[in-house]
Amino acid sequence: MPELRRDPVIGRWVIVSADRALRPVDMKGNGASESFSKEGPCVFCPGNERYTPREIMALRPSGGGWRARVVPNKFPALMVEGDLGKRGDGLYDIMNGVGAHEVIIETPRHEISLTGLSEDEVRDVLWLYKMRMLDLRNDPRLVFAMVFKNVGVRAGASQEHTHSQVIVTPIVPLRVQNELERCRAYFEYRDRCMLCDMVVQELSSGVRVVLETPNFVALEPFAARFPFETHILPKHHASHYERTEDGQLPELARVLRSTLGRIERAVDCASYNYLIHTSPLNVAPLAHYHWHFEIIPRIIRTAGFEWGTGFYINPVPPEHAAQYLREVKV
Amino acid sequence: MPELRRDPVIGRWVIVSADRALRPVDMKGNGASESFSKEGPCVFCPGNERYTPREIMALRPSGGGWRARVVPNKFPALMVEGDLGKRGDGLYDIMNGVGAHEVIIETPRHEISLTGLSEDEVRDVLWLYKMRMLDLRNDPRLVFAMVFKNVGVRAGASQEHTHSQVIVTPIVPLRVQNELERCRAYFEYRDRCMLCDMVVQELSSGVRVVLETPNFVALEPFAARFPFETHILPKHHASHYERTEDGQLPELARVLRSTLGRIERAVDCASYNYLIHTSPLNVAPLAHYHWHFEIIPRIIRTAGFEWGTGFYINPVPPEHAAQYLREVKV
Repeated sequence: MPELRRDPVIGRWVIVSADRALRPVDMKGNGASESFSKEGPCVFCPGNERYTPREIMALRPSGGGWRARVVPNKFPALMVEGDLGKRGDGLYDIMNGVGAHEVIIETPRHEISLTGLSEDEVRDVLWLYKMRMLDLRNDPRLVFAMVFKNVGVRAGASQEHTHSQVIVTPIVPLRVQNELERCRAYFEYRDRCMLCDMVVQELSSGVRVVLETPNFVALEPFAARFPFETHILPKHHASHYERTEDGQLPELARVLRSTLGRIERAVDCASYNYLIHTSPLNVAPLAHYHWHFEIIPRIIRTAGFEWGTGFYINPVPPEHAAQYLREVKV
Repeated sequence: MPELRRDPVIGRWVIVSADRALRPVDMKGNGASESFSKEGPCVFCPGNERYTPREIMALRPSGGGWRARVVPNKFPALMVEGDLGKRGDGLYDIMNGVGAHEVIIETPRHEISLTGLSEDEVRDVLWLYKMRMLDLRNDPRLVFAMVFKNVGVRAGASQEHTHSQVIVTPIVPLRVQNELERCRAYFEYRDRCMLCDMVVQELSSGVRVVLETPNFVALEPFAARFPFETHILPKHHASHYERTEDGQLPELARVLRSTLGRIERAVDCASYNYLIHTSPLNVAPLAHYHWHFEIIPRIIRTAGFEWGTGFYINPVPPEHAAQYLREVKV
C-alpha cells in the first residue's frame, strides 16, 4: 500500500510508493531516454486488451470494437481498497495511499496526439472525463479528481498511444487548495468570482486571447510560467468540470483540439502536459471558483531557481505567444 | 527591463523577460539537447575572463591567478538598476524586474562537479555565498537571496564548468513565504522551531539520516518529493545562512562535499540542483525559521499530475535512500 506523507514545513503531500519501490541501483541512468521504448506491442492498441487491467468502461459502437476505453492504471500511484488510516509519527502526518488511478485510452488508433482525433472523438474523451468524475465522487473517501494528460517522453509519458489519466485523491492538493483560498478571499472582498473578472478583463483587452467561442476562451495567462502556457476557461461561471452540460462538450472539444493544434504548430512541441483544475468533488457549486484547463508545453527546463522559489522565468511574454497562436494556421 | 508579474489565482510571481525574449520560432526544438554545446571556449576557464561581465569579487592567492570569481550573469533574469515601480493593471500586480543575478565560478579548473574541488575550495565557495548575501542585503529594494546550483543539462545548467548562482529578488518567493508562515504558526502553537524539532526527531530515529557532524546533519526528508532528495541542516537553531560563522564553514564544506559525492555514486546522476532556503535579508534573527540546503537529483521526470497538484510520487522511500547513501563508499 502506498503511503501519503505530508511535509511539515511546506504542507505538501507526497505519495511514497514503497510497493513500486525501485531499488536505488535501478535509478542509474533511469529517465534519461528521450524516446519511447519500441519493445513489445503497444498495450493500448486493439488486440492487446489483455495487457491492461480489467476495463472500467468503454464506448462501443454497434458495429463492434471500441472507440475509447477506461482501465485502471497497471502501476497505480494510489490503491482503491482500504481505509485512510490517518495517523501521526511525531511531527509527521501520514495516511494510507487510498485513491483511484485510471487511464483513458482515447482512440483505438495509434495516434500520438489528441489532435489526430476528430472533434467527435475529442468530445467523447471529454465526456469520459466527466463520467469518471461523476462515478468516483460517490466514494466518500475521495475528495479531489485530477484529470491530466502527458504527451511526449519529456512530459513524463510512458506510453506513446494518446491517453489521459485521472488520479482521485483523499485530500485536496496544496496547489488547488491555494487557488481555492485566494479565490475565496477575493470573493469575500468583492462578491465576485476572480476568474470571471479575469475572463472579462482578458476579453476586453484581447492581447492574450488565443481563441474565443460563445462559451469558452483559450488565453495565455498574464503571469504565464512557461512559453505558450495556455489556459481554457468557460466564459460563464462554472465551479465543477463534471457539471458541464453534454451540449457544451462539442464546443469545448473544438476549442481544446484547435488550441493544442496551434501549440503543436507553433513550437514543434512533442511534449506537453495538460490538466484540469476544478472544485473538490462532493461540494455544492462554489460561487468563488471556476474550473479551467492548464496546458503546459515542456519547452524550457526548470532549474534550481524555479525549484527553490516556486517562481519562474518566462522568456516569451504571453502577449507575443498569444499573437503567434492566433495567427498560426491549423 | 524584465517585469515581475503576479498570478492572481495562485499568488505566484513570474519574471517575464521581454528583453531576452525569444521569438516563438526560436522555441522550435529548443531545450531538447542532452549535452552541452562544445562550440567555443569555456567562458569560465582562465584566459577567457573577457567573456564574462566585469568581476564583482574574486579570491586571488598571492602567487597570482584566481581561486574563485564572482561575476554578473551575462543574461540576467533581473536588472540591478532602477526602482520597483509597483503598479496594477485591473486584476494584475506588476513591478519592475529589479534585482541581482550573479554567477560564482567555483574553480579555475574545468571541473564538472563541486566534488572535484578540495574541502578548502568548497569552503571558499560557501564563504562567497555568505559574502554576496552580506553585500546584497545593503540594498533596501532587495528582500530575498536565493543561492542555487544547476549541475547537468537536465537540471537546467547552461555551462558545464562548475558554478553556482545567486538571484536576489524584491519579493519573498511564494514557496519560501509558505514555509515561513507554516513555521511561524508552529512556533506560535508550540514555542519551538519546527525544524529544530525535526532535527531532534530525525537524529533520534536515525532511519533517514545520511551523515552527521557536530554541527550539521544531512538527511532524506520524511516527505521527500524525489528519489535521493537530501537536505542539509544546522543542528542548532540558525535562521540566516549568511550569519553562519566562518569557523563552521569547513565542517559544512565537508558535509556538502561528502553528501554530493554519495548521491553521485548512488545514482550515476549527472544532473541535480541544490539551493539554500534561508530567512529574508534584513530581518533580525527569527526564532521560528531555520535555513537549510535542499539537494534535488533530477532522476525522474515530473508530469502533469505533479504540475497540476504540486504533489509528487516518489518511488524510493527516503528510508531506503538514506540507508543506501550511508553505505555507499566515497
